[in-house]
Amino acid sequence: MAQEKERPKSRIATHSETAIYVRDANLVDDLIGKVSFTQMLYFQIFGRHPTEGEVKILDAVLVTLMEHGFTPSVIVARLIAMSSPEATQAAIAAGLLGVGGKFVGTTEAAAHLLRRIVEAPEGVEAAARAEAERHRKEKLLLPGFGHPFHKPDDPRPARLFEVAAEAGHSGKYIAALKQFSKEVDEVYGRHLTINATSAIAALLCEIDVPVHIMRGFSVLSRCAGLIGHLNEEHELPVARTLWENAEASVDYLGVVQVRHE
Amino acid sequence: MAQEKERPKSRIATHSETAIYVRDANLVDDLIGKVSFTQMLYFQIFGRHPTEGEVKILDAVLVTLMEHGFTPSVIVARLIAMSSPEATQAAIAAGLLGVGGKFVGTTEAAAHLLRRIVEAPEGVEAAARAEAERHRKEKLLLPGFGHPFHKPDDPRPARLFEVAAEAGHSGKYIAALKQFSKEVDEVYGRHLTINATSAIAALLCEIDVPVHIMRGFSVLSRCAGLIGHLNEEHELPVARTLWENAEASVDYLGVVQVRHE
Amino acid sequence: MAQEKERPKSRIATHSETAIYVRDANLVDDLIGKVSFTQMLYFQIFGRHPTEGEVKILDAVLVTLMEHGFTPSVIVARLIAMSSPEATQAAIAAGLLGVGGKFVGTTEAAAHLLRRIVEAPEGVEAAARAEAERHRKEKLLLPGFGHPFHKPDDPRPARLFEVAAEAGHSGKYIAALKQFSKEVDEVYGRHLTINATSAIAALLCEIDVPVHIMRGFSVLSRCAGLIGHLNEEHELPVARTLWENAEASVDYLGVVQVRHE
Amino acid sequence: MAQEKERPKSRIATHSETAIYVRDANLVDDLIGKVSFTQMLYFQIFGRHPTEGEVKILDAVLVTLMEHGFTPSVIVARLIAMSSPEATQAAIAAGLLGVGGKFVGTTEAAAHLLRRIVEAPEGVEAAARAEAERHRKEKLLLPGFGHPFHKPDDPRPARLFEVAAEAGHSGKYIAALKQFSKEVDEVYGRHLTINATSAIAALLCEIDVPVHIMRGFSVLSRCAGLIGHLNEEHELPVARTLWENAEASVDYLGVVQVRHE
Repeated sequence: MAQEKERPKSRIATHSETAIYVRDANLVDDLIGKVSFTQMLYFQIFGRHPTEGEVKILDAVLVTLMEHGFTPSVIVARLIAMSSPEATQAAIAAGLLGVGGKFVGTTEAAAHLLRRIVEAPEGVEAAARAEAERHRKEKLLLPGFGHPFHKPDDPRPARLFEVAAEAGHSGKYIAALKQFSKEVDEVYGRHLTINATSAIAALLCEIDVPVHIMRGFSVLSRCAGLIGHLNEEHELPVARTLWENAEASVDYLGVVQVRHE
Repeated sequence: MAQEKERPKSRIATHSETAIYVRDANLVDDLIGKVSFTQMLYFQIFGRHPTEGEVKILDAVLVTLMEHGFTPSVIVARLIAMSSPEATQAAIAAGLLGVGGKFVGTTEAAAHLLRRIVEAPEGVEAAARAEAERHRKEKLLLPGFGHPFHKPDDPRPARLFEVAAEAGHSGKYIAALKQFSKEVDEVYGRHLTINATSAIAALLCEIDVPVHIMRGFSVLSRCAGLIGHLNEEHELPVARTLWENAEASVDYLGVVQVRHE
Repeated sequence: MAQEKERPKSRIATHSETAIYVRDANLVDDLIGKVSFTQMLYFQIFGRHPTEGEVKILDAVLVTLMEHGFTPSVIVARLIAMSSPEATQAAIAAGLLGVGGKFVGTTEAAAHLLRRIVEAPEGVEAAARAEAERHRKEKLLLPGFGHPFHKPDDPRPARLFEVAAEAGHSGKYIAALKQFSKEVDEVYGRHLTINATSAIAALLCEIDVPVHIMRGFSVLSRCAGLIGHLNEEHELPVARTLWENAEASVDYLGVVQVRHE
Repeated sequence: MAQEKERPKSRIATHSETAIYVRDANLVDDLIGKVSFTQMLYFQIFGRHPTEGEVKILDAVLVTLMEHGFTPSVIVARLIAMSSPEATQAAIAAGLLGVGGKFVGTTEAAAHLLRRIVEAPEGVEAAARAEAERHRKEKLLLPGFGHPFHKPDDPRPARLFEVAAEAGHSGKYIAALKQFSKEVDEVYGRHLTINATSAIAALLCEIDVPVHIMRGFSVLSRCAGLIGHLNEEHELPVARTLWENAEASVDYLGVVQVRHE
């Protein structure tokens, strides 16, 4: 271990005994009371203040994902809050562990797909067609398409596209998603709805959010939603019943058969 | 299990095949593109739209806690991101598990103390004095007082009180905190700074946030800050060096002594 | 930051380029293939090899807690595995966050109670009576008493006491627990079963496990059990049905009422 | 939601008011005090009692991974224990979130590779050579090869192979790993050590552990190791110093430069 190691470096924050600086702004003088949560979020991550349009996009994305009833994340957070009432942070963290690759986490896969289509030398239309055909042929999951509850269409994407247009950010990624959706319907011979996650991927691409942190925004939005559920669990507890119902619903496949009267 | 169990109930959300309702508002028609993240957060939790003043308070609180450099939460999130790059949600969740009773989590304890002072039949001044004396005598931690880095004063509380005044929410809890601080200095015979967590407790009390979910707001704010750090870790990785430095800094107290050259 | 900080110290492990030492033993020469998991666990934590009796106690404790069907931890782990299939560690971690103060975590509270009784100057009988009366009068939770499913008695404690006797570790803590149980029944005027967590507290006290890490053993045992459930979820998935059932079971209390046909 | 859903099914456990059954065995009569932790672990997961050889393999694997000093998981667990002292389960869970794809989690990738080599129609030697060449050509990570600290060889694999032979489980997977290692050295023109994770993959393959739960065993083993570190943190706290050192080691790249005296 003789060689000199490079010192860790960060552009985000520093502090003295009397001041905290975030991205060179004085937290107390320049930020608290002057910027909204969404503005601060953008500023802390990207190092510059967002435009009005960027704030509008971010707000729309974060509002969209905040709440969708008793998702796995909500059920998990409520069960952990019941089990570990000493640690609200644990209930939230457990719920957020569900923001993974299967549901909300398809945002990244959708964003990668949109980037490939937008950057394809053969043009958006040909690339979208080729991707739709490849997904069908290789029986790949279509990231950000289909929805377990919403039929024929997830209602959120159309509204998100409207907001993007109002914000001046309806560009090539949203166009690519719409084109891809058209090709998917033709290639698969039936209508598969664009769902919220691919629409969100398109909006975040429009404001240049890197793909590798898109999941962070989903996590943040769900984090907000979990607070409401934990607050409600405090007043109107349901976790115990959810547990008992789940317990009672499982059939044991062994030889021993217990009678529950 | 013969008895009929009460069905779980929730006031937060419902959905049909074509619509999502949050607190009876149509997510797509009434919320996306019309409310900010902070407005949505309040609405989802409390079931009514916030006033401008309430938004101002919430934004100030969430902006204040978002960033404070390489806190334990940030170090943890970066280490987990290095170890489990497949799961951004795990890095964030791990970091949030650090928003516990010791540091940021003192908000609840501070809020309980302020409520006791405000509601004391003997009046705020007498109650604040008595609490300060009791804390000193029983050698209790003063929740939301003192700071490891900021001396003589954490710069955030004064600004938070200003914002509360601007927002029309500088009421009895902030007054109680100031009175308590005065008594603490007298009783302890030295100046102990009000820190961000007790100031935040006072502001959240002013807008009637229940104590049991205050930690949720700290978690949410830190969640936002972690996204910025994980984004930076992607471009400017430091976790490996932090790990190696930590590893190399620990002296083994056993008999076996290994030479590292 | 001018003052010299003390270097971190640890008695647990060190390593050279060619060897790993745990508690001064050479991992490769002295431990792998020579000690069981339970022996290694004890050795790593306490720095000496366990006696046969200590291993018997630890094994009994860890076997007891490993499995109890669809507990909140199991439901949570299966839901997270469904949502985040890329990260088995996240599913396990989420489940373990449920090993908190409410259920399994009562072990510590039970251990503290048993220590107070054992160390009371007035003797075990008087102390046990006084504690039972105090718990009743102050309407305190009796830690490690009662069980939601097992009536009239949780079957595990009696067997754990037998194993402790076989292992030569049936001493004052188990005696104190039995005495306390007798007093509880008299004071409350009805039979409340000793449950697994207080029995485990007593056994762990008998082999001098510090109270502050008792929860660690519960977490470890549940960690093992979760592997079996995640393995089964892979072959015989139930998480999606648990989710859909939970979702469908919640009544929305708002004005909007959606018809699910 | 009119259609009848299939009821969830499980082969693992059931219970009556007076008994708990795991895999049809009575927990109290047949398991507690009669089987070790490792035997119970195998029984709960696989539904039959393990042979002596299978126990020997599992113990060796779990002992091997339990401890390796201040790994990211250990640092994380200690930092979270300092921040959230109310929740030991949170400290452990946070640490376990580090058992991901980058370090310990390479076990699965190694197991998949070994399976491909063993099942290749062209024979082990040709398949091992082809895989080594493909990895080099495509600049792929060699899963379970190389080690940041141990040079020229990680000392654990050789011992694990010995134990497997003693246990009567030195078969085709271990042979394939040795062959692959030989080919890697030739193809890369330098010696790359087999590390503990690929050796463990080979041993677990020898006793037919499915690849998709291998990470579970790593998580379990690390879970045990974290208990020892949290116990030590209680007596000999180092987390605060690790934090302060990390904090002080980061250079801020912004314009504002704060002087720390």
